Amino acid sequence: MPYSALLTDLYELTMLAGYLREDMHEQQAAFDLFFREPPYLGSYAVFAGLAPALDYLSHLKFSDADLAYLNSLNLFDAPFLEFLKTFRFRGRVTAPCEGEVVFAGEPLLTVEGTLAETQFVETALLNIINFQTLVATKAARLKIAAGPDSEVIEFGLRRAQGPDGGLSVARAAAIGGVLSTSNVQAGQVFGLPVKGTHAHSWVMAFPDELTAFRAYAECFPDSCVLLVDTYDTLTSGLPHALIVAGELRELGHEMLGVRLDSGDLAYLSREARKRFDRAGFENVKIVASNELDEHVIHSIRSEGGCIDIYGVGTRLATCAGPEGGALGGVYKLVESNGKPRLKTTSDPAKSTLPSRKRWLRAVNPDGQFHMDVLDLQDHSGEPFRPGHIAFDPANPQRHKMVPLQCDLIDCRHVVMDSGEVLSQAPSLEALASYAAAQLSRLPEGTLRLINPHRYKVGVSRRLLELRNRLQTAATS
Amino acid sequence: MPYSALLTDLYELTMLAGYLREDMHEQQAAFDLFFREPPYLGSYAVFAGLAPALDYLSHLKFSDADLAYLNSLNLFDAPFLEFLKTFRFRGRVTAPCEGEVVFAGEPLLTVEGTLAETQFVETALLNIINFQTLVATKAARLKIAAGPDSEVIEFGLRRAQGPDGGLSVARAAAIGGVLSTSNVQAGQVFGLPVKGTHAHSWVMAFPDELTAFRAYAECFPDSCVLLVDTYDTLTSGLPHALIVAGELRELGHEMLGVRLDSGDLAYLSREARKRFDRAGFENVKIVASNELDEHVIHSIRSEGGCIDIYGVGTRLATCAGPEGGALGGVYKLVESNGKPRLKTTSDPAKSTLPSRKRWLRAVNPDGQFHMDVLDLQDHSGEPFRPGHIAFDPANPQRHKMVPLQCDLIDCRHVVMDSGEVLSQAPSLEALASYAAAQLSRLPEGTLRLINPHRYKVGVSRRLLELRNRLQTAATS
Repeated sequence: MPYSALLTDLYELTMLAGYLREDMHEQQAAFDLFFREPPYLGSYAVFAGLAPALDYLSHLKFSDADLAYLNSLNLFDAPFLEFLKTFRFRGRVTAPCEGEVVFAGEPLLTVEGTLAETQFVETALLNIINFQTLVATKAARLKIAAGPDSEVIEFGLRRAQGPDGGLSVARAAAIGGVLSTSNVQAGQVFGLPVKGTHAHSWVMAFPDELTAFRAYAECFPDSCVLLVDTYDTLTSGLPHALIVAGELRELGHEMLGVRLDSGDLAYLSREARKRFDRAGFENVKIVASNELDEHVIHSIRSEGGCIDIYGVGTRLATCAGPEGGALGGVYKLVESNGKPRLKTTSDPAKSTLPSRKRWLRAVNPDGQFHMDVLDLQDHSGEPFRPGHIAFDPANPQRHKMVPLQCDLIDCRHVVMDSGEVLSQAPSLEALASYAAAQLSRLPEGTLRLINPHRYKVGVSRRLLELRNRLQTAATS
Repeated sequence: MPYSALLTDLYELTMLAGYLREDMHEQQAAFDLFFREPPYLGSYAVFAGLAPALDYLSHLKFSDADLAYLNSLNLFDAPFLEFLKTFRFRGRVTAPCEGEVVFAGEPLLTVEGTLAETQFVETALLNIINFQTLVATKAARLKIAAGPDSEVIEFGLRRAQGPDGGLSVARAAAIGGVLSTSNVQAGQVFGLPVKGTHAHSWVMAFPDELTAFRAYAECFPDSCVLLVDTYDTLTSGLPHALIVAGELRELGHEMLGVRLDSGDLAYLSREARKRFDRAGFENVKIVASNELDEHVIHSIRSEGGCIDIYGVGTRLATCAGPEGGALGGVYKLVESNGKPRLKTTSDPAKSTLPSRKRWLRAVNPDGQFHMDVLDLQDHSGEPFRPGHIAFDPANPQRHKMVPLQCDLIDCRHVVMDSGEVLSQAPSLEALASYAAAQLSRLPEGTLRLINPHRYKVGVSRRLLELRNRLQTAATS
């Protein structure tokens, strides 16, 4: 479904009108999209949203209805509305693969083209990339907390931002490694496996719990997961589930699992595991839900909980948690009319890195990531090489040599040129595998949920010097 | 745009298949949609989302593509897929007006009809009502914090959950009283006023700030708002804005305002006000943005900040804040096959109130709200009247008589019957006025941002007794 060209903040349109009037709209410009702080007090993010972003860019077009609406605002003159009729995005986009592990300050996207087209697409790109990256990162954290032997399922549709919000969640969660969802539409649109069992209301609609369980097992003998906490998990739900598991086996079927949705999940899951194992049902899976997040999952595992599948809803769909809720991605002008640009304010943390950049990853001979380095893209001066010093942009007193034995890999490639998408997007499964592989290559401690090791992102000497020159010029 | 019938968790479909197989699908049932805790550690919520929810219900229909997809899952049999072909929602919905002030435990919606149709719509109704109500409530809190003389604008598109999330935010924010938005598509779809100025990149694209300001003022002489913090607010942005304000006046125009986007907003806004007033520009408005929420706004005002318009983005679009991010609305079976139903678990806070209910509001002679009472809807026994005792459902030892001089108002009416919407939705402006009027009728302290007075919601003696009887029966 095409995105509306009016998917934008008004100020993109007022600026566009201004650039046209000033005859600056065809000046060449470059913008970087980046975030200043990783989400969830973590150290990294998992990049996502590229395919929908490119879809937006390649189909950008004002419809007659859009133009009529803009005309009705009495804000824009006729030449501008005429200009919008043929306005398209014909620029270039440089980006990593979706699923790439990315860090604060790194240019996730660089968008190059005319000042008009590169400025206008700001709001839509931020809308798409911010949320998809935030969810993919949350999903990766959940997978890491759950460990390699457990699965995580996305259950968040009922708490997402409307129908489309629910779809965005499912797509991005898949890239982060949460590949199954309860959202049937997401299954249809993205080909993701859909999962689910029944609600408490199923049990309440029958005269008693055992009758309800038997009816459900009869309908779905080979995919029967029973929700066991409608009345009481230990004295009612589990004993009834055990009866049904036995009855299913007599008919030649195996019960798939039980779901715990309240109470002490660590304790109840150990108890459930014990009872099923004792009765010879070692393959019955234990599913848990109820306000789970990565910290709750970590705590359940540290107390010996026996959970095979975690269903995560609200905290995944809304990305709740400390410093959660939003990725503070921003979109900043780094070059215009051939000149590097810089934004400085009283808040030094908001100062940007000027010019078009190469984003390099130093990789150890064993394949582990050593650190990232941002260098200038232009050919003046010496490109960054192993053996060179990289500086902390927030505090250049801190610097570090990239060891000679490291390889330097370009983290990005050109994914759109002249407004054309250059290659087809990989499947969500392939992106999830890529994300998992990249995460496994980070230095020890970087994945820690709390107080993680901060992966280093340095800048080259020539990029640092350029920033310093521009800062001095701006303040003098 | 019609909602997909696959906008649902899979378990609604598995349960539907089960009810059909058990021949229970045509039993009569009633579900209540309610939340257990008000959002943001506050005491109330502003109900929103009814019109889109009714739109969903009245158009619910499985397309051929939906049925083909469901068939491909190898989970459902042919009679069920045949049943879905003609499946529609033909039930009844009882609800308050959008904009109504609502409290924990109150049945925001009661959905009555066949067990099949009432169960199936759970996920979509929760998706729509949870998020719209959460945003409308946040918007109301922002308006209350900003006070009667300041405006709040919704700036959240770039941090919302995708394009459609951004639209949902704008609609619900309007009901809560934040009627203007930066989101142009929301202006087009909902007729809301759209607002905006320019970004830092506008300033950076020009050789210097004054040139950039002059160019913007030339384009928009009667709606010129200048962003003054690209380099330095006090030494650069404000002096340049003052020059442009003077130049505009000489040409017969008045500058509309300046926007502060970083730094100490209380201090900078006082300073800006002083400078503009001294220069004779008393009507220049001061706009502030940058990670605002109701607590930041409250703090700015308590320090004498002079801000006319607050632009709130992230914290409105994502509903961030303590206990924010999601409204925990749930959808529970309260009656089936003519019998009242109850869900009890080991967690007593999750126990539901059985049966179909009347939701009454006791109103003092001066129009102020006194308390709310939930009573049974059926005609057996004596309906609740002034002079009767209402009980705290969480602790029936606490009870309170509704004074004889109070009027008892029904908070809800039937808004859909036999699947038909009964009346047209009012305009968003009308809903916003209604919400503001209702909020102004709450007891003192109920609107406080922190540690508010808890508005009382009691239950009638006959509802309490019914719940106790069912609880006893379930545990014996």
